[in-house]
Formats: sequence, structure tokens, C-alpha cells
Amino acid sequence: MPTAAVVPHAPEALPQPYLLFLGDTVEPGYAKTAYGLRDWAPERCLGEFACPGATVSTGLPRLTPAQARAGGARAMVIGVANPGGRIPPAWVPALLDALQAGLDLVGGMHARLAGIDVLRNAAIAHGRRLIDVREPPSDLPVASGRKRTGKRLLTVGTDCALGKKYTALSLARAFRDRGLDATFRASGQTGILIAGAGVPMDAVIADFAAGAAEFLSPDADPAHWDVVEGQGSLSHPAYAGVSLSLLHGSQPDVIVVCHAVGRERMLGHAHYLVPSIEETIDLALRLGARTNPAIRCAGVSLNTAALDDADAQDAIASTAARLGLPVADPVRGGAAFERLVDACLA
Amino acid sequence: MPTAAVVPHAPEALPQPYLLFLGDTVEPGYAKTAYGLRDWAPERCLGEFACPGATVSTGLPRLTPAQARAGGARAMVIGVANPGGRIPPAWVPALLDALQAGLDLVGGMHARLAGIDVLRNAAIAHGRRLIDVREPPSDLPVASGRKRTGKRLLTVGTDCALGKKYTALSLARAFRDRGLDATFRASGQTGILIAGAGVPMDAVIADFAAGAAEFLSPDADPAHWDVVEGQGSLSHPAYAGVSLSLLHGSQPDVIVVCHAVGRERMLGHAHYLVPSIEETIDLALRLGARTNPAIRCAGVSLNTAALDDADAQDAIASTAARLGLPVADPVRGGAAFERLVDACLA
Repeated sequence: MPTAAVVPHAPEALPQPYLLFLGDTVEPGYAKTAYGLRDWAPERCLGEFACPGATVSTGLPRLTPAQARAGGARAMVIGVANPGGRIPPAWVPALLDALQAGLDLVGGMHARLAGIDVLRNAAIAHGRRLIDVREPPSDLPVASGRKRTGKRLLTVGTDCALGKKYTALSLARAFRDRGLDATFRASGQTGILIAGAGVPMDAVIADFAAGAAEFLSPDADPAHWDVVEGQGSLSHPAYAGVSLSLLHGSQPDVIVVCHAVGRERMLGHAHYLVPSIEETIDLALRLGARTNPAIRCAGVSLNTAALDDADAQDAIASTAARLGLPVADPVRGGAAFERLVDACLA
Repeated sequence: MPTAAVVPHAPEALPQPYLLFLGDTVEPGYAKTAYGLRDWAPERCLGEFACPGATVSTGLPRLTPAQARAGGARAMVIGVANPGGRIPPAWVPALLDALQAGLDLVGGMHARLAGIDVLRNAAIAHGRRLIDVREPPSDLPVASGRKRTGKRLLTVGTDCALGKKYTALSLARAFRDRGLDATFRASGQTGILIAGAGVPMDAVIADFAAGAAEFLSPDADPAHWDVVEGQGSLSHPAYAGVSLSLLHGSQPDVIVVCHAVGRERMLGHAHYLVPSIEETIDLALRLGARTNPAIRCAGVSLNTAALDDADAQDAIASTAARLGLPVADPVRGGAAFERLVDACLA
């Protein structure tokens, strides 16, 4: 029995349905894995489980591991990502509970589940699996910079954790709804859990990061769209290198810039202001032109989750007027989103 | 006996003197490790050894491993770095010769010496060590973006392999010659072999790359200078992410842009033009201002190795006039280099 099956490219083999684990998290921005699974793979999510003190919730039923197992769950998925991707000791009792209850564990942290002795021993004792989806493919190439066939779109953020994955998933679905051949390309652990394939960009050795982005969106039919999930922000003091590698390697024809209304300071780095949308568009086009001189910005995806509907429509309209570009919140959809899709395909 | 001692931070413990191994290399740009050791640690280099077909040379005596061992050598250092950092099968017989002759092997490739079974087995059989200096420290932090005390200079390139390490070594020596407290901070394998410490930036997991650069140049006395070896180029289609992480994490007060006269196409990526010095300065200042708004460019280090002395002086003078900045070739030194040092310290 393997104690740590590595399944980066075959999540269809992941044990499911899931119980979503929320750790001891009090910052909703860190729970994007749980929210993403709830929204894009609801048929696989039975409920949620958290440590004492956690304040975030997916709104799914709260179940103990034993209740979830009795209800048919096969695995507990770690649905939160703290800075640095480590597994804090406070989570370990809950993870042991899940193994004891008969659930496999699925993680996407930098720290590997199988690297924690007490979990590995418990998995062996209970006949369970520890599955890390953040393991990048081995033998990634150095980027060639060669232009590939097919069309590519990349979502580019002003910050982390504000809708780049949602936007890419929404655009890929909208493209398919219009009869186009489009593939969502996942670059992070949640996206990989949802899509069933992808490359965890932030876990790749730095020298191969742009090569990983090339590997993620290979040559395709000239009419095919790869809709690539962005990572980080070109202005992020810790993660900009990952963002630039993904921009260079994915060679997008089109970018959509993602921004959260009211986010003034960088998540987890509050001594840094969030850059303006204008600055982010300008920087992404300048840097992206290095590997695709035809790069253009189709518009802006505006996360208006903090606003009521009237204020959201006002924010979308005023941002569109200011920028002279299509602006939409994919979560709200509507005519504004259809105009953004039009602009991507124009 | 350890088969693969990891010595990223204590190269004073490396077995020496060295025999420099040149592989089957025909591209001088790939032999910068050998050249760097010859020029900055000559007392540790007894000679060179290469496979049949190699055309590059350090000018040091050509010795077989047995001759080198008889002359006192303790280790053979792999002095070349091919794209991707792999160890080609053609090198293996020469590496086995060295182990059999009684030399340890020291490597700085992505591929680990100890990862090649036949080398590991031979090292065990002959009682020799395989030492990989490209192993980054474990448990690197995510970058905080916090401003640190002390002064920092970073060398920034228009391309790879054109003098960023030489420039940093030269400037650190010049600073010390003027009585200042200055430390050369190595970010690549050759620099680490020369300096005795450092972080191999390109081998770090992408999410921790800016954090590695922060780790490399910690808080220091306000009058102390860290002179940080640059990596890659912000315009390189494969390595720009590494360059940006190093720029953000090292938070330089001063940059010196490094360029090679006559280099029109990127090394190993000839379908990409080398960006202009002006473009590189502008891009580095714009991106670097994110973590240090006071960043400035002190001048340009011009690699004139391809020119005779008169043409080199012309190139230096005309570039300085065009840019309105101090320009010097550190290898040639002289008054131009002293003016560049003045500008760094101004």
C-alpha cells in the first residue's frame, strides 16, 4: 500500500466525495481552495470540518470526519492555504481524526502530508492514503520561448486571492457555451482539484517556472483556446517572479486583469498598497510583449463580493467608464460579462 | 561515509585544490564557472580536464585526474553549466575517472551528482564524496517585503552569462579597497564556490525565490554594503522570474546594469534579441521600486572582451556619452571603473 500516492495529473483517481477541511483559519482569503471546490465541483463536496477557533465557512453542512464517512465521504481535502504553505501543528489532531474515521487525506500545501511522521504512521496504521496534488511533474523543461499554435488567455491579478481562478473558469465555460473549443488550465492546487490536471506553478523550481507554463499550455489547434489560471501579482513583493514566469511561458494573446473592489492593501503584506488596475494592465502588457508581441488586454474582472447589487453595478460601470474597457464580475454574470467575453474573442 | 554531503554554506570545507572539468563544451558562455574560479580563486585551481571534442579552455595546465591527484588536487569541480543544468551521459566516463583517481566531485548543476547511480556507486567503491553546492537551504521563508538595514547593490543583466558575477566581485573588492565594509553575496554556483557562502537562486522553489533573496542579504550595519550577484535577465524568456525575485528580494539601493558589447541575441535563445541597456535600466528601476522606492542606477558594466583595447575604450566612451552615466569594463579597470565605483557610493 502506498503511503503517499502522488497524483498531479490524474485527479479523476482522487477518492471522493470530499469533506472540506478549513483548519483554524480566520482569513477568508486563505480559504479559496474550499470555496473553489464548493462552487465548481459541488457534486464532490459533502460538508466542511474545522478546528476550534476557525471563523471561515463554506456554508456546507458541518460534519465530523466520522459523520462524513458515514455519509459516503472518501477523503478530507485541506481547503485552506496559509502563507508559505505549511501545515501547522494545530491542524494535526483534526487530520488524525479523519484518517481514523476512514478518510484519505488530499493536500495541496508546499509541506507534504507524507512528510509529517505522525500522519504517515497513522495512514499506514489505518490503511489510508496521503495524496499531495502540489507535486509538480518531474523533468520540466527550461522555457524555449518558441511561439506555440492555438490561442491563449491568462488572468492577471492586482493581488493574490481575488478571483483569477474563478475568472478563468468562468471564461472557459462561457467560451464553451458559445461553441468554442476551450480548456481551463490550472496553475494552482485548487484549480488542479477542480480541473483534473494542471501544474502547481508555485511549487516548481524557479529556473523551470516559465518552462512549466509552456508545458501547461502546449501546441493546440489554431482555433482552440487555453484559458490559463493566473497566479500572484506582478507587483507582489514575494510572488511576482511566479507571476512573470507564468506570463512569459503562457504567451497569452489576451489578458483579463482581475481586481477586488476595496482591496487597498496586499493580502498578507499589508505594508504594500495594491497597485491600480491601470498600472497592472500597463505592466503586464509591457512584460508579456516579450514572448508575445500581439498581447492585448480584453478587459477587467472585478470582484464585487463586498458590495450589494446596486453598488456592484455602480462599481462595474464607473470602472468601465474610467478605463474605457469592458468590466464585469463573473460571479454576477449578466450583460457586462457577455461584453467581456465578446472582447476576449474579438 | 556520506555519499552526498550538502555544503551550501560552508565551502571552506570543500576539498581543494581543484581540477576544473570542462565537459564537452564548445560554447565559452557555458564555462563561466571554470573562468570564475580561475580568476577569483586561482590559488585553488591546479589545472583543467575535458572530454574529447571540447573546445573551451581556461588556459590552465591540462591534467588527467591522475596527474592532478599526484600534483595535490583533492577534488574535480564541474566548471561548465549547460542549459537546464543536466549532466550529459558523455561526461560520465570522465567523472568516473576522477573518482577512480582519488578525487572528490563538486558540482553545481540542477541534476545532483548523487542522483546518478553509477557515480554514487563509484563514490562508495572508491571512498570519495559527491558534493552538490546547488542545494538551497531548507526552510527558506516567503519574502516579507520588509525594508532591511544596510546598503545593497545588485548587478542586473541584459542577458545571461555576460559579467554580472565579475562585476559584483569587482565592485565588492573596490569598495573594500576604499575602506568600506562590503560583502559579495553569491546567488549562483560559481559565486558560491568563490565566496564560500550564498544561495543558488535558480534552484529554489519559485514561491520562496524572493524570500531566498531576502535571506541572502540580511539586516546589516547601516554603513555595510551587500554587493549581490545578479541572475539571468528581466527580459529572458526562461529566467526572468528568477531575476525579478532577486530584484524584489534584494531590495537594492543601487543597480549596475551589465551588458556585453556586440551581443545581439540572447544566449541559448537566439530567436530573442538582447534588450537595450536603456530598456533594461528603465525596466529594472520600475520593477525594483516596488520593494525599494529609492532604487537608482549608478551606471553600466560593459563587457568588452570581444574588442581590442582601443575599440573597448571607444565603446565605453560612446556608451557613457549616449546614456549620460558612468560606464566601465571591470576587467579593464582604470579611471572609468573608479568613476563607476564613485557613482555607486555617491
